[in-house]
Amino acid sequence: MAAGATLTTCSSVDKATAARDFGTETEPVHGAHQAGVATPPQTHAVFVALDLLPQQGRGPRETLEAVLRLWSSDIARLAEGRPALADTEPELAHLPARLTVTVGLGPSVFDRVGLAHRRPRSVTEVPGFSTDRLQPRWCGGDLLLQICADDLVTVAHASRVLLKNVRAVTRQRWRQNGFRHAHGAGGSMRNLMGQVDGTATIADAAGFDRLVWDDGSDQPWFAGGTVMVVRRIRAEMDTWDELDRQSKELAVGRRLDSGAPLTGDLETDQPDFAASRNGIPVIPPNSHIALARPRRADEQFLRRPYNFDDAPPAGHITDSGLIFATYQRDPARQFVPVQRRLAQSDALNEWITTVGSATFAILPGFRPGEHLGQALL
Amino acid sequence: MAAGATLTTCSSVDKATAARDFGTETEPVHGAHQAGVATPPQTHAVFVALDLLPQQGRGPRETLEAVLRLWSSDIARLAEGRPALADTEPELAHLPARLTVTVGLGPSVFDRVGLAHRRPRSVTEVPGFSTDRLQPRWCGGDLLLQICADDLVTVAHASRVLLKNVRAVTRQRWRQNGFRHAHGAGGSMRNLMGQVDGTATIADAAGFDRLVWDDGSDQPWFAGGTVMVVRRIRAEMDTWDELDRQSKELAVGRRLDSGAPLTGDLETDQPDFAASRNGIPVIPPNSHIALARPRRADEQFLRRPYNFDDAPPAGHITDSGLIFATYQRDPARQFVPVQRRLAQSDALNEWITTVGSATFAILPGFRPGEHLGQALL
Ligand code: HEM
Ligand code: HEM
Repeated sequence: MAAGATLTTCSSVDKATAARDFGTETEPVHGAHQAGVATPPQTHAVFVALDLLPQQGRGPRETLEAVLRLWSSDIARLAEGRPALADTEPELAHLPARLTVTVGLGPSVFDRVGLAHRRPRSVTEVPGFSTDRLQPRWCGGDLLLQICADDLVTVAHASRVLLKNVRAVTRQRWRQNGFRHAHGAGGSMRNLMGQVDGTATIADAAGFDRLVWDDGSDQPWFAGGTVMVVRRIRAEMDTWDELDRQSKELAVGRRLDSGAPLTGDLETDQPDFAASRNGIPVIPPNSHIALARPRRADEQFLRRPYNFDDAPPAGHITDSGLIFATYQRDPARQFVPVQRRLAQSDALNEWITTVGSATFAILPGFRPGEHLGQALL
Repeated sequence: MAAGATLTTCSSVDKATAARDFGTETEPVHGAHQAGVATPPQTHAVFVALDLLPQQGRGPRETLEAVLRLWSSDIARLAEGRPALADTEPELAHLPARLTVTVGLGPSVFDRVGLAHRRPRSVTEVPGFSTDRLQPRWCGGDLLLQICADDLVTVAHASRVLLKNVRAVTRQRWRQNGFRHAHGAGGSMRNLMGQVDGTATIADAAGFDRLVWDDGSDQPWFAGGTVMVVRRIRAEMDTWDELDRQSKELAVGRRLDSGAPLTGDLETDQPDFAASRNGIPVIPPNSHIALARPRRADEQFLRRPYNFDDAPPAGHITDSGLIFATYQRDPARQFVPVQRRLAQSDALNEWITTVGSATFAILPGFRPGEHLGQALL
């Protein structure tokens, strides 16, 4: 072949660097809790909400159980870097890159499968807020799949496998693709408004037990689960970008460069909400962190947000914001009071718009040989 | 605050690992050629096609020049990890993660700015092929921005900055988001059909000079440029997944596990198209590689494809495939004969559908103090 001179072959696997490749890293899949909640956030996340379709000759409860059985076995395999059963692209399974798959049930599905009496009281759509501009296409859902990994090829393959398996019995309601900084790139999590995001966190196991994981006191089957409230929040970048830096920092109560509170120097400094200069509070009382900060211990929850940046609708430059994923025992006591306070007077409201909302019972974890939802169904 | 016990602060910058963070890596921005063509493919890519809008009181040529001036200065800064001029999220510029921005002009724009006589003959839409199922929403465009980096936050920020700058004079025509394996995850580039993709490449500078970079013999101003043909090709995963492995391998002519040709053991082995077993060619003559392989030295071009995996339309499981980006001196002599052969009889055609197509003159590179398109305008 005449072209041989310049046509060569190459393999992109560089053996010399194989030792530090992170693609083989795994997150434990089995246990009292599902992975993907306490897991340090991976770079990529896909959130898919599905509705159960009515089936001929099989009740919705059996259908749901079949879905959860299938998913449990495939999730366990994929998280360990093994192909799913009947995986048609098995090679795409070999680099799990800390894959986690987290499964939830929407409030609606308990009625649908005749288990309304087993629905935890905590699992219910959150009320509307004055600032909500909800679009039905980003709301609700019978089932949630949250698929996270440090490699987007892994996420794409896992979502394909898991969705394909249930194609005959579900319909996709919405899907949201999210991302954070790349694994190994360095830097803090910043959202696309430029802010350091994720500073205040629940750090310890005791906090998780108290604030995040259900203890089964309402519904014993739900012990080890948690309730996810996921909000799609558009960032109004066009007007945000017209704002000067100082106003941006006052709106949040933290500095843009370091993420430090306006009363401190380091991201890790505790904000001093009492500090004032010339009689004016340094951190405005209507700033995002002043209002979001819990008033009672109860009002805390785990935030695990992802950026989104989708192709914009006609006439727009960008369509970006946060997939604001939160996890807690009881949204009514934890998420709702904070969101209500924010809706009322958060200075940031002018530049953010909530366009989607959904609540899911994140099922308790499962052990080898068990399947998700086993205690419920 | 009662909640203090579990509310702690943390910074995600781990000083110990800073040494191996790749976020600070840069690709050279100035030179005879634009970056983003010969550059080893980064993990993420966004391709945006824009149309120039008619302006009051300024001719289209001045508008185009203003756009290219603005972009040149911002691209140079962003590629070096510095904020763009008037960057409203300067902190998002600090980790370039090998950012490259590559700018192209569609065939239409030469007429629009009164420079039809300066359009290289090579820069023209490719003809239709029998297998095309083109959707106007994925075709054409006056201007192309190709933005690649190993970190999606960097890509999102750069695209925001560059698009915002030209919002008053352009309209977005289409945008495609693509990805490959994560930086540092290990593994070869695989597409979502599970194949090793990108084996046969143009490896050396001599090949690039001959096959990719324009030498100015038609239009002197274009020396150092190249012609991009970008095709959006949907993978028909639902039927592909019904196929057995052997049929999949015969369709391409290479093995799924290793990417080796069916006549070899290693990805790097040269395929032997003459080999047969029981009188039957081992690599079918209508397999993808048998037909795609150049018949004449001319028929080679640089492939730099990215996977896409978007939210699917209602009733579908996935919407994925390849953003098949190619670069060459002259598509009519390089891309078209190969694509024509493939359209005619490629075994893979049953499982891939081309839904978008566009051609762009990728401008020659620029030096410090110069701007893109300077020799043209
Ligand atoms: C696009 C929307 C939002 C943006 C851009 C945003 C941004 C931020 C930023 C920059 C911080 C400070 C850094 C940190 O501690 O993470 C923060 C803190 C916080 N945000 Fe938001 N936020 C958004 C929506 C929300 C919503 C909807 C809620 C709750 C309903 C919320 C609750 C909180 C809480 C609880 C904190 C920690 C406050 C503290 O104790 O210091 N945020 N947010
Ligand atoms: C979704 C669509 C496509 C898929 C999944 C695909 C897949 C592949 C695979 C797996 C290989 C073998 C590995 C390699 O050398 O990279 C390959 C090779 C190749 N493909 Fe494609 N391809 C697609 C579309 C196209 C199109 C549209 C063209 C050209 C018009 C093309 C041209 C080539 C060429 C030139 C080679 C190298 C052949 C050789 O010399 O060995 N491909 N492709």
